[in-house]
Amino acid sequence: MKARVMFSGGKDSALSAILLDPYFDVELVTCTFSLIDVGNIARKVADELGFDHSVVELERSVLDEALEMAVEDNFPKNAINHIHSHALEKIAACGGVDMIVDGIRRDDRVPRMDLSRLRSIEDRYGVHCASPLQGFGRAAVDLMVCEHLEVEEGLSDRISKADYETELRYLIRQKYDDEKILSIFPKHVQSRVLRKIKEKTTN
Amino acid sequence: MKARVMFSGGKDSALSAILLDPYFDVELVTCTFSLIDVGNIARKVADELGFDHSVVELERSVLDEALEMAVEDNFPKNAINHIHSHALEKIAACGGVDMIVDGIRRDDRVPRMDLSRLRSIEDRYGVHCASPLQGFGRAAVDLMVCEHLEVEEGLSDRISKADYETELRYLIRQKYDDEKILSIFPKHVQSRVLRKIKEKTTN
Repeated sequence: MKARVMFSGGKDSALSAILLDPYFDVELVTCTFSLIDVGNIARKVADELGFDHSVVELERSVLDEALEMAVEDNFPKNAINHIHSHALEKIAACGGVDMIVDGIRRDDRVPRMDLSRLRSIEDRYGVHCASPLQGFGRAAVDLMVCEHLEVEEGLSDRISKADYETELRYLIRQKYDDEKILSIFPKHVQSRVLRKIKEKTTN
Repeated sequence: MKARVMFSGGKDSALSAILLDPYFDVELVTCTFSLIDVGNIARKVADELGFDHSVVELERSVLDEALEMAVEDNFPKNAINHIHSHALEKIAACGGVDMIVDGIRRDDRVPRMDLSRLRSIEDRYGVHCASPLQGFGRAAVDLMVCEHLEVEEGLSDRISKADYETELRYLIRQKYDDEKILSIFPKHVQSRVLRKIKEKTTN
């Protein structure tokens, strides 16, 4: 059985992949609009973790629509949900896997997919959508991460990451300026996985 | 790190335990009102799976309150949520663990805990509450179960299980009759784990 895990290089998507590793052939996949080479940022982490990795190109129009949403809302929630929803659909349409996985946690406010949207993708593409960390809070995730992954953490404008926010920020900087980024994105802590601390144990 | 997994002998709680096994010292725990020896039903399955197992006694008044709710609603949802909420609180109060785990799936309509209720338990007892299957639909769970667990499935009045429903049904039969049980509980498929198919693999 094959699972494709949407991978940003952060601890949530990394832990999601590691959790499913005993059950599936796990492949990491990073979505990009090719404004920044986020595929390469993610691939380095994927190599450290020992997972196969691929890059999927999303339509540029999706990022342009997200930019409009972010500017109109002056907040990134709807924009990020818009991109994530398209990314899920795109990866489902690629076929060849049993399960498509993201790293959404219980306490994440964004991205957050409607159950009806997930079921629609599952039914139309004959695939399962899963969020292995959906039932874990941030502190519980950190508890599992800290014994298995070495992680670099910092404010969101300091950490190079392969998530949607990275390219959306880049586009906002192109079209507007740094002020606009600061006004749209609340500062928050991001993580990037550096390497595994040790091999998993099993009984 | 220690996790206590609320265990009914069914596939959801068994898979939850197996998923967390590489990260925690897992102990299974079964809650009972001692109307039926559900602890013993669960212990046999726990032994097959190779996990430690204990039994926690819940206050009989909780079951009596649940009975009233089920009869008044003519539906078990609020009654089961009432019991689960008390069981979580009771196990949290026992202390000695980092994480308390249940087997709730994405599509389960019951039990279903409010996030605010979970956070209240986490804050008051300094423990993490987790539902490892919260981000998986029924079909996705079955996909993971079918390669690892041999499971017996059948209608809910035919499968001996160590869940809240079993003792609630027993009490309804004592106070009313079989008709009443049929009127309150919609027939649904239950599972009981028989044994592991094979050892987990890890890379």
